[in-house]
Amino acid sequence: MNIDGRPWRTIGLEEDGRSIWVIDQIQLPHQFQTRRLASCADAAEAIASMVVRGAPLIGVTGAYGLMLALQEDPSDAALDRAFAQLEATRPTAVNLRWALERLRDRVAPLPLEQRAAAAQEEAGAIAEEDVAMCSAIGDHGLAVFRRVLEQRPAARQGEPLRVLTHCNAGWLGTVDWGTALAPIYKAHRAGLPLQVWVDETRPRNQGASLTAYELGQEGIPHTVIVDNAGGHLMQHGLVDVVIVGTDRTTRRGDVCNKIGTYLKALAAHDNGVPFYVALPSSTIDWTLEDGVAEIPIEARSEREVTHIQGRIATGPAAGSLATVQLTPDGSAAFNPGFDVTPARLVSGLITERGVASADPKALRELYAGA
Amino acid sequence: MNIDGRPWRTIGLEEDGRSIWVIDQIQLPHQFQTRRLASCADAAEAIASMVVRGAPLIGVTGAYGLMLALQEDPSDAALDRAFAQLEATRPTAVNLRWALERLRDRVAPLPLEQRAAAAQEEAGAIAEEDVAMCSAIGDHGLAVFRRVLEQRPAARQGEPLRVLTHCNAGWLGTVDWGTALAPIYKAHRAGLPLQVWVDETRPRNQGASLTAYELGQEGIPHTVIVDNAGGHLMQHGLVDVVIVGTDRTTRRGDVCNKIGTYLKALAAHDNGVPFYVALPSSTIDWTLEDGVAEIPIEARSEREVTHIQGRIATGPAAGSLATVQLTPDGSAAFNPGFDVTPARLVSGLITERGVASADPKALRELYAGA
Repeated sequence: MNIDGRPWRTIGLEEDGRSIWVIDQIQLPHQFQTRRLASCADAAEAIASMVVRGAPLIGVTGAYGLMLALQEDPSDAALDRAFAQLEATRPTAVNLRWALERLRDRVAPLPLEQRAAAAQEEAGAIAEEDVAMCSAIGDHGLAVFRRVLEQRPAARQGEPLRVLTHCNAGWLGTVDWGTALAPIYKAHRAGLPLQVWVDETRPRNQGASLTAYELGQEGIPHTVIVDNAGGHLMQHGLVDVVIVGTDRTTRRGDVCNKIGTYLKALAAHDNGVPFYVALPSSTIDWTLEDGVAEIPIEARSEREVTHIQGRIATGPAAGSLATVQLTPDGSAAFNPGFDVTPARLVSGLITERGVASADPKALRELYAGA
Repeated sequence: MNIDGRPWRTIGLEEDGRSIWVIDQIQLPHQFQTRRLASCADAAEAIASMVVRGAPLIGVTGAYGLMLALQEDPSDAALDRAFAQLEATRPTAVNLRWALERLRDRVAPLPLEQRAAAAQEEAGAIAEEDVAMCSAIGDHGLAVFRRVLEQRPAARQGEPLRVLTHCNAGWLGTVDWGTALAPIYKAHRAGLPLQVWVDETRPRNQGASLTAYELGQEGIPHTVIVDNAGGHLMQHGLVDVVIVGTDRTTRRGDVCNKIGTYLKALAAHDNGVPFYVALPSSTIDWTLEDGVAEIPIEARSEREVTHIQGRIATGPAAGSLATVQLTPDGSAAFNPGFDVTPARLVSGLITERGVASADPKALRELYAGA
């Protein structure tokens, strides 16, 4: 997708082949910078500190992290060490584990001297497959949007399609295109008029910062709202469709996504607004059925709740980034990172293979033979 | 309620009888200061700049503002001028107009030399009535809490009562006790073990700042969460009861309260968690039935979404208050201030007269003869 009118990806191999570059997402939306990762430790740090974030991008970064480790030391011991180091950065991210395992399975049978080159090839393949998968999700999601548009009352024909999204499931969380935002980009490029409601997505505000930034750079009309506002908008007919991503999906279609997703699904259900989830098949955990009961939810740092980062608006320090405290000294905070939206609230799962309803049979059929 | 171990109210007459003091709520939770209001102009400025906020407190401040005007000049012309000046500060605040009219009706028939003293008496009476009403809401709410505790499964007996609240319906918005927080204070003083989940309540963060501050000063265990987290907590049995305030209540019990309340009501309903609303009868609008259709929702400033105030955490400016921008330049925002929770999601209305279910018959019966 575009930044300043120029096409970008979120991650790539540097020309020397011995380091990678990533977009530093901590500085967004206020500053656009890339960062060079020259070691497995750099990659692990970039994942842990959320310089890179989003399940697919974390997976690709992890794969490149293993590559960087093997360039330094291709031994089994080094491979195991790097695997453990990278995996520990985000224990809830099933995609990270999947990418690390895929890369390890590819290189482990090889002689030591072939491992680094094979790792580079495999990490590159994971990245390209992610781009293709997101593009396919975008195409299937575009078809969903067209159906939603067709089913609107005649009086509303001609108005833009009003889409609400939560968090950032955009191209910044993948290599390109994104998951939940891919259909929006495809729709925009296909000439469908759009208006996107962007949940700010406390506590880390990935909506207000990253989603708003992505959409703005791509020239798509969008409006930031607080997470509290979506229910009111749906009550008043101001949302045609909700689309979100997922970090982990059970075999019956329960969806574990950024905290607050469940509340939007409830509001969509209460107001007859279709609620879609976009996902690459790698987020499906076929071993799980009941997401609420079975998926452990990461409790993140209290500081994400008590403090917030932004750009100072006035005074002598105007323009510089600062972290401000929001709560009284001494007040505790609790910060669950995700919640689970039960399949009963999900209108459909938009995958790279097509759209399935959120039930075990439909999902299994879509992936029959896979 | 207590601040630093000492009982306070939000407003009071100074000993000289010719000025009033208020808590300066703009500085909270980071600094506690009182401010002396020595004229009607001072009172008007305190209301307009939100040094005082909350419908009941604004009303009492307005009444004392009229008293200060009459101490200077008890003429009809001065009374009219002061009335207009105070009313213009918050033209949508129904309670302010009500208090000003009550005070004017009391003093207007009197000889000039009796007006200031009568005004002081009447403003004091309005304040005392507010305290009594909030205290009664607290007592009725305490009875509700006791029932919720009794109905918990045996395995949970002995654990604290876990209450979730949204926004600030605490004593800082009234003279003392508050509305939704009054039952919490009564329960704490009655020795019930409590754990309060405090929604931060974007965009103005009255939960993270004022509610957390109030509870902390009163020594009540509480934990601040982002507005997105409540649904997850309820799914996992971590909330026993939800209690919120209301700005406007229809005759069938639809509740117009701070934006995001509706989402919490949906989550409570989906998880079988009782959802109560605390209100003084002055918020009931008997002319309205369907809140979603009939109550116009104020769209507030975009800047409340795109910017936030806090205390700088690190660096040379640490400790000073600052406003930071959260969104990219050029991204629009939309800021509806309230939403409507339909009566079907409300377990009960806790008023100064007792508890009614949220239906037109029950509410009318409670206020029969009023």
